[in-house]
Amino acid sequence: MKTTVKPMKKVFIAGIGITKFGKHSEKTFRDLAIEAAMKAIDDAGITPKDITELYIGNFAQGMFEGQTHLAPTLYSDLGLKRNIKGVRVENACASGGFALYEAYRAIKAGYADVVLVLGVEKMTAQKTPVVTKILATAGDAIYELPTGITFPGYFALMTTAYFHEFGGSREDLAEIAIKNHYHASRNPYAQYPKQITSEDYFKAPMIAEPLGLYDCSPISDGAAAVVLMSEEYTKNNSSDGLVEVIGAGASVTNVALTERFKDITWLEATATSSEIAFKEAKIERNDVDVVELHDCFTIAEVIQLESLGFYRRGEAINAAVNGETYYDGKLPVNTDGGLKAKGHPIGATGVGMAVEIVKQLRGEAYNQVEGAEIGLMSNMGGSGASNVVVIFRRV
Amino acid sequence: MKTTVKPMKKVFIAGIGITKFGKHSEKTFRDLAIEAAMKAIDDAGITPKDITELYIGNFAQGMFEGQTHLAPTLYSDLGLKRNIKGVRVENACASGGFALYEAYRAIKAGYADVVLVLGVEKMTAQKTPVVTKILATAGDAIYELPTGITFPGYFALMTTAYFHEFGGSREDLAEIAIKNHYHASRNPYAQYPKQITSEDYFKAPMIAEPLGLYDCSPISDGAAAVVLMSEEYTKNNSSDGLVEVIGAGASVTNVALTERFKDITWLEATATSSEIAFKEAKIERNDVDVVELHDCFTIAEVIQLESLGFYRRGEAINAAVNGETYYDGKLPVNTDGGLKAKGHPIGATGVGMAVEIVKQLRGEAYNQVEGAEIGLMSNMGGSGASNVVVIFRRV
Repeated sequence: MKTTVKPMKKVFIAGIGITKFGKHSEKTFRDLAIEAAMKAIDDAGITPKDITELYIGNFAQGMFEGQTHLAPTLYSDLGLKRNIKGVRVENACASGGFALYEAYRAIKAGYADVVLVLGVEKMTAQKTPVVTKILATAGDAIYELPTGITFPGYFALMTTAYFHEFGGSREDLAEIAIKNHYHASRNPYAQYPKQITSEDYFKAPMIAEPLGLYDCSPISDGAAAVVLMSEEYTKNNSSDGLVEVIGAGASVTNVALTERFKDITWLEATATSSEIAFKEAKIERNDVDVVELHDCFTIAEVIQLESLGFYRRGEAINAAVNGETYYDGKLPVNTDGGLKAKGHPIGATGVGMAVEIVKQLRGEAYNQVEGAEIGLMSNMGGSGASNVVVIFRRV
Repeated sequence: MKTTVKPMKKVFIAGIGITKFGKHSEKTFRDLAIEAAMKAIDDAGITPKDITELYIGNFAQGMFEGQTHLAPTLYSDLGLKRNIKGVRVENACASGGFALYEAYRAIKAGYADVVLVLGVEKMTAQKTPVVTKILATAGDAIYELPTGITFPGYFALMTTAYFHEFGGSREDLAEIAIKNHYHASRNPYAQYPKQITSEDYFKAPMIAEPLGLYDCSPISDGAAAVVLMSEEYTKNNSSDGLVEVIGAGASVTNVALTERFKDITWLEATATSSEIAFKEAKIERNDVDVVELHDCFTIAEVIQLESLGFYRRGEAINAAVNGETYYDGKLPVNTDGGLKAKGHPIGATGVGMAVEIVKQLRGEAYNQVEGAEIGLMSNMGGSGASNVVVIFRRV
């Protein structure tokens, strides 16, 4: 059955804010969240009292720092006006993207005119083995985790399957890491703003064969925020640098890798979300000027690009090798350094992607894509069981 | 600024399902969730493949059983159709209510026609001291928890303040526990389906002065589910027992008890949510025939009733004493036994309230309120920092 009432408001991003991603030993997640939120609020030219809904993207702060119930917690810290709605949204590593998606729908439907979306995670409060265990809860705790698998293992399996099916090698993956570190080297907000060489890549320890250290995104602390506005509200405010959200899609699929509908080198939720988003945006893949996608591991950049429809299956493995995904290439990808080199504070990641796309469309990025008009972000949860795709256009 | 586009679809509850609340040693949260969901799906006269969006209300299964990313996890277990949207919503003890609220808005706006809302928590997988610690994360981890306070402590403070301000005594609170246990004694799905006496109440150990064991809701496992439908969809399906959602409100306030805008015997988020819900429903307090509210502690039933506007401040303490809140009284409250005696599996609680209201409006409740046409639920998070109110009408 088809829906007959079409929501009809236009939705804009009027403000963006982000912290440096990395290890913030002396800050709690609340400090990071406040920093990003206040930057976004200032950037939007409003005050905290103008916000009427609050969506928090956060994966597991209860486990990282003993704080759940984040909407009222951050409501308190930000001094928002009385009696607004706030809620936390969680879909593993796609928590930030889903928070953005829900907020987008709220404005589009006319429920709110000014919404703050705040993604945050402080992970380094726990030691690495504990963090790995917390992250593993995003897999299937009954059917997968008892085997001992954690996330590098999932993506190692996907890599091996990809190499087997389509070819490709660690040499190709190295080029993705080198590209993303090159982008990060020019972004002071990145966790690892430094270039790496092929030698660095191959000398680094193996994590889960065939993925080495430089194939893996790091453990990070950080926050990112965007202020969304309805069209009417932007007209009554002198907001500069508006970017329109022209399409969005979100979907889930089976959580366990063994239960995917296609083979494990295909991300069904990513593909579905992108179909929905492109249909709504009424544009084609080749209209997109810049992409932020979920490279939690180098192989993820490859299969995201293919599942999003930018490359045929088996072909994205050569994208970085051929220089196509550099900021000055034909399809710039992860111009901020990506999860690999910018960092991956789980709940902040999806919102941080939106921040980078807005910077690009405003012409304010560190690795500026010349004349960028349309940008796309793809934020994935777990080993691909959830995904959000959002498409943005310069106003 | 006021919103100009009004969402316009009517929203109905077409199916309900609930498990027994209690200790389910041999079931995981997934078993419980499937049981409640399949009951609701059957009750709605649909199949899992008809559902197009999934909202999960869950507080902390990552901490209780090592599973986050619940939307795809339960998507897998339920065999839902490919490519639907699913997300988990968390606002502490109001997680279920907020999931319901977001789902309601999705249908109202025309984003979906058939939505499954599934609240679940399996708490007994951890020992009581650990559960207490997990629950405490819903308070303020920086400004409150270092004092050593946990939830019985918060509500003990509120009780003491209430007694000081308005009078009242443990004798009055005892009558609330006795009433809710009486209701539960006739509900086989309740965790404690047995009556208690005043003697039981006073002989029980003190937990946090002046709150004793029988003032406190228990640690529970359980799940509850509802299927929401758009009006168009109900017309194309032979759903019996439809109940319309005629109003809903949700809000947050400062998380720490010390930072509340009024004194601590007033629940601002509860009051705000109810104002919004009543305005939308276009009815008055005295139109309500039956109420499900958040009695995590006996005192909470009192201050919820006052903050919801059913009693003047200082007067709800006598409601149970006077027999007014029994199922055959003038304002029946917690006819299923309430959190106190039915149980309080955190994420399931808000959805379970909706299940009971629907039963009442269908005339199928264990403690049936004669001729009930309009019901209200109020689901609170933490010590009152978040709240959802939903109003339902018999069709």
